[in-house]
Amino acid sequence: MLQPGLMMDRPLLLSSVIEHAAAQFGEAEIVSRETHGPLFRYTYAQCGTRARKLANALAGLGLKGGDAVGTIAWNNHRHMETYYAVSGSGMVLHTCNPRLHPQQLIYVINHAEDQVVLFDATFAPLVKGIAAHCPMVRAWVCLADAAHTPTIEGVANVQSYEDLIAPCSDEFAWPEFDERTGAALCYTSGTTGNPKGVMYSHRAIVLNAISGCNPSILSLSPADAILPVVPMFHVNAWCIPYAAPIAGAKLVLPGPGLDGKSLYELMESEGVTVSAGVPTIWQLLLAHVEQNGLKFTTMRRTLVGGSAMPRSLIAKFMDTYQVEVRHGWGMTETTAAATMGGLMPAAKGWPAEEKHAHLAKQGRTMFGVEIKVVDEQGATLPRDGESQGELMVRGQWVLSSYFKADRSPLVDGWFPTGDIATISPDGVMQIRDRTKDVIKTGGEWISSIDLENAAVAHPAVAMAAVIGVKHPKWDERPLMFIVRKPGHALEKDEILKFLETQVAKWWVPDDVVFLESLPVGGTGKVQKGDLRKQYGSVFS
Amino acid sequence: MLQPGLMMDRPLLLSSVIEHAAAQFGEAEIVSRETHGPLFRYTYAQCGTRARKLANALAGLGLKGGDAVGTIAWNNHRHMETYYAVSGSGMVLHTCNPRLHPQQLIYVINHAEDQVVLFDATFAPLVKGIAAHCPMVRAWVCLADAAHTPTIEGVANVQSYEDLIAPCSDEFAWPEFDERTGAALCYTSGTTGNPKGVMYSHRAIVLNAISGCNPSILSLSPADAILPVVPMFHVNAWCIPYAAPIAGAKLVLPGPGLDGKSLYELMESEGVTVSAGVPTIWQLLLAHVEQNGLKFTTMRRTLVGGSAMPRSLIAKFMDTYQVEVRHGWGMTETTAAATMGGLMPAAKGWPAEEKHAHLAKQGRTMFGVEIKVVDEQGATLPRDGESQGELMVRGQWVLSSYFKADRSPLVDGWFPTGDIATISPDGVMQIRDRTKDVIKTGGEWISSIDLENAAVAHPAVAMAAVIGVKHPKWDERPLMFIVRKPGHALEKDEILKFLETQVAKWWVPDDVVFLESLPVGGTGKVQKGDLRKQYGSVFS
Repeated sequence: MLQPGLMMDRPLLLSSVIEHAAAQFGEAEIVSRETHGPLFRYTYAQCGTRARKLANALAGLGLKGGDAVGTIAWNNHRHMETYYAVSGSGMVLHTCNPRLHPQQLIYVINHAEDQVVLFDATFAPLVKGIAAHCPMVRAWVCLADAAHTPTIEGVANVQSYEDLIAPCSDEFAWPEFDERTGAALCYTSGTTGNPKGVMYSHRAIVLNAISGCNPSILSLSPADAILPVVPMFHVNAWCIPYAAPIAGAKLVLPGPGLDGKSLYELMESEGVTVSAGVPTIWQLLLAHVEQNGLKFTTMRRTLVGGSAMPRSLIAKFMDTYQVEVRHGWGMTETTAAATMGGLMPAAKGWPAEEKHAHLAKQGRTMFGVEIKVVDEQGATLPRDGESQGELMVRGQWVLSSYFKADRSPLVDGWFPTGDIATISPDGVMQIRDRTKDVIKTGGEWISSIDLENAAVAHPAVAMAAVIGVKHPKWDERPLMFIVRKPGHALEKDEILKFLETQVAKWWVPDDVVFLESLPVGGTGKVQKGDLRKQYGSVFS
Repeated sequence: MLQPGLMMDRPLLLSSVIEHAAAQFGEAEIVSRETHGPLFRYTYAQCGTRARKLANALAGLGLKGGDAVGTIAWNNHRHMETYYAVSGSGMVLHTCNPRLHPQQLIYVINHAEDQVVLFDATFAPLVKGIAAHCPMVRAWVCLADAAHTPTIEGVANVQSYEDLIAPCSDEFAWPEFDERTGAALCYTSGTTGNPKGVMYSHRAIVLNAISGCNPSILSLSPADAILPVVPMFHVNAWCIPYAAPIAGAKLVLPGPGLDGKSLYELMESEGVTVSAGVPTIWQLLLAHVEQNGLKFTTMRRTLVGGSAMPRSLIAKFMDTYQVEVRHGWGMTETTAAATMGGLMPAAKGWPAEEKHAHLAKQGRTMFGVEIKVVDEQGATLPRDGESQGELMVRGQWVLSSYFKADRSPLVDGWFPTGDIATISPDGVMQIRDRTKDVIKTGGEWISSIDLENAAVAHPAVAMAAVIGVKHPKWDERPLMFIVRKPGHALEKDEILKFLETQVAKWWVPDDVVFLESLPVGGTGKVQKGDLRKQYGSVFS
């Protein structure tokens, strides 16, 4: 019979994260861009104080443990306070993606049963359009003082955040409860059907955040300043709002200022050492830096995820600007990152190109998560760096079922990610495609992502997308879409010739369509479904 | 009503630590000094393989989940395999301190109900003396191959580790069970009464180990090589045998070679970047380095704990050898470190002396642990850096009760440490004394540790100890014991005059006794109880 451990039985709760920071790193700073422009600056101790005031305010509105509170907000300090006040009280923080279609926003707010929604003034027009369709919301709170809280025509119950918390006590006894309690809820931006909710537990978030501080992941200490460009409304901003206070790192929140110039200036003025975002953001940032002959004086590391980072971008960061690139992988269903790339000590002597190729991979699993790739029959494929199959994931911060869903999405206890990947013998995972995007031709697979990356390496290509199109002989053949860089000429023959130098001959697309833009969805990803609808049978 | 999180419910188990390392960092090295001298070198993948073989071997001996397995061993690779095979199987790893008195060793082996004991050949004489008194032990396994396994007179059931595991399969399905299950058992070296057992859970160890990888604690990544001088037989070697595989750091195990020369040579030849040990070890190491005009070419950081590190030693490491010193605090009852010192970025411009003084403090709590200091009535004292009281601790890796004990040692859910400490407003804790060592004089307290540190700063002092001696007028007065450095002359007047320049006048000891040595116990600490017995009433 197993023997019981004789350790204190204390839950891992998010309230202890902010209280830890307030007690250990009370003077460490949070710097936040207000929605109306200026920078706001305070400490973790003050953040804790205001989170407790908000917890009292929410209780005053009649909310209790288990109730859902929505946010439609930028990365800013009031959003941060909301993170802790809501989850710390045992309520559920439902971060809404403002890029969702208004109909989907209405759906998720009602599905989550949000009782209160906190929003940034930017999104007042959005609130105006949806409020009447969200009958459960008893208060719409603008994350601003009274002077910056708009009146919204047709929405009676709008109030200012500062007015709401001002009269409240800054003492609040955070409740203790099971660490498996739901803390936060985020919906996928499913391209088909309604968004699906993922309910993160306190335990899952805390475990990811502690691990996230480690040198191979975010690497956070009091000597760091981290700027999450990844939005707090999506996948917990990769748990950075939780990891930074655990580590005592300075937290820099960019608010709505997500253009290259704003980000660069904030990074420089606040001594940012680490940042995290999707490839598009880094593209915009580098464009600004290049065009203005600037350099990074404090930035040491960028973390990238969400979609594949082009190698050319990795090369520029590493070689031109001496900023380390770490490519991670995670999804709404995995709380935050599940794997993280990076170079091992043995890579020191590698040629630059080999380094870039390695850094384009999504890396090793964090401790607490396991992965495998399986074939279409579900059999585990070898870790040989070549066998492609669907990526399966399980672990401490992986969902078990969707919110209010009947059927478990798991297969033998593993979550099927819908990604096609390879795993090398040393555990390094590389995303090759989405299961629905991979092109099956003559019994072989072509990775649409690899083809797109090859095209983007051409100096005249701004964006590229590849879909599989039904073909009478080969089952499917690739069709490429290209958006040219402004002022650049590029024709089909030239790009096809270029691709012949980059990929196997049978990978070269059968045709190229030049577009002015590509359809991009709520989380910044190209909507290949739209392309397929229009072009999916041009070869038949 | 609280809402349940919808995340996978997977336990934090030690078996997943070694399997994580084998899969992610399979080629990372473990280098181990054999008990008979040479270096042994293999990988985490091979360590995992052999741990699984040992798990099969233990099952073959008839052991099952919950059974206890003892070790009397150095820091080496077979001890490491035992860590994982035993705990991973759901058994209890009982690490015995070979420095315990044989009577105490017999007591702990019987109290823990060890079924098998694995020992290093060094300790064969010890085994010979105790085996007959440990009737529950069905096998004594020497951590060696057959050639290096001694026959022990009077002990029939001795076998070689290599012979034991050789025939076993390297496949073993680690069982899944509650993460609160007991994984390891370590006894305090209580100076009064029988040793008391602390039963660590899988959860407690894993949480400490993940947190231990963070930049502010051990700071471990695949770029690091860590050498734990802290013994694997005591307080889980500060969880380094668990943290290193989580981080993929190279692990260097020094075996019995704990003298300055052996440690220095191993550090240099294996590119060690981080080490951890008690002050005595660092004193020996620095003596060797100084005497031979050496320097550290790869060492970046030493972690120190167990007792107070003299400032002079901190200064030498920092300023002469450019090795960072981090002073931690923990005890058998806290699994590993609970707090860790270090300099914040704001300390960059401080004068060297201020840095050293700060680094002599035991630092901030790791996330997952809370501390407070209380007065003799149990009331919480202010965090003002001056109010001294008993240090109370609670958290994820703090014990709830001793093994097989009736009475809980907790007070309102907190563990009273028996240490006297202060906490500064920024959360930095400093141990000032043990409750039983603090000298109460005229209603005020004198810290014996501070007095000892002041004395050790004198160039002729090798060791110092201070006790409180009953005094008719002042209740207690300090009496100091000094061991001179070889070849140095020092008399009472000189040291007292020196102390007057270092501490308040009323702290200066009433008398000084010069000794050839101080009584040191099983964990390397001066046994003040022995001094008190002999000298405790010399002033009355």
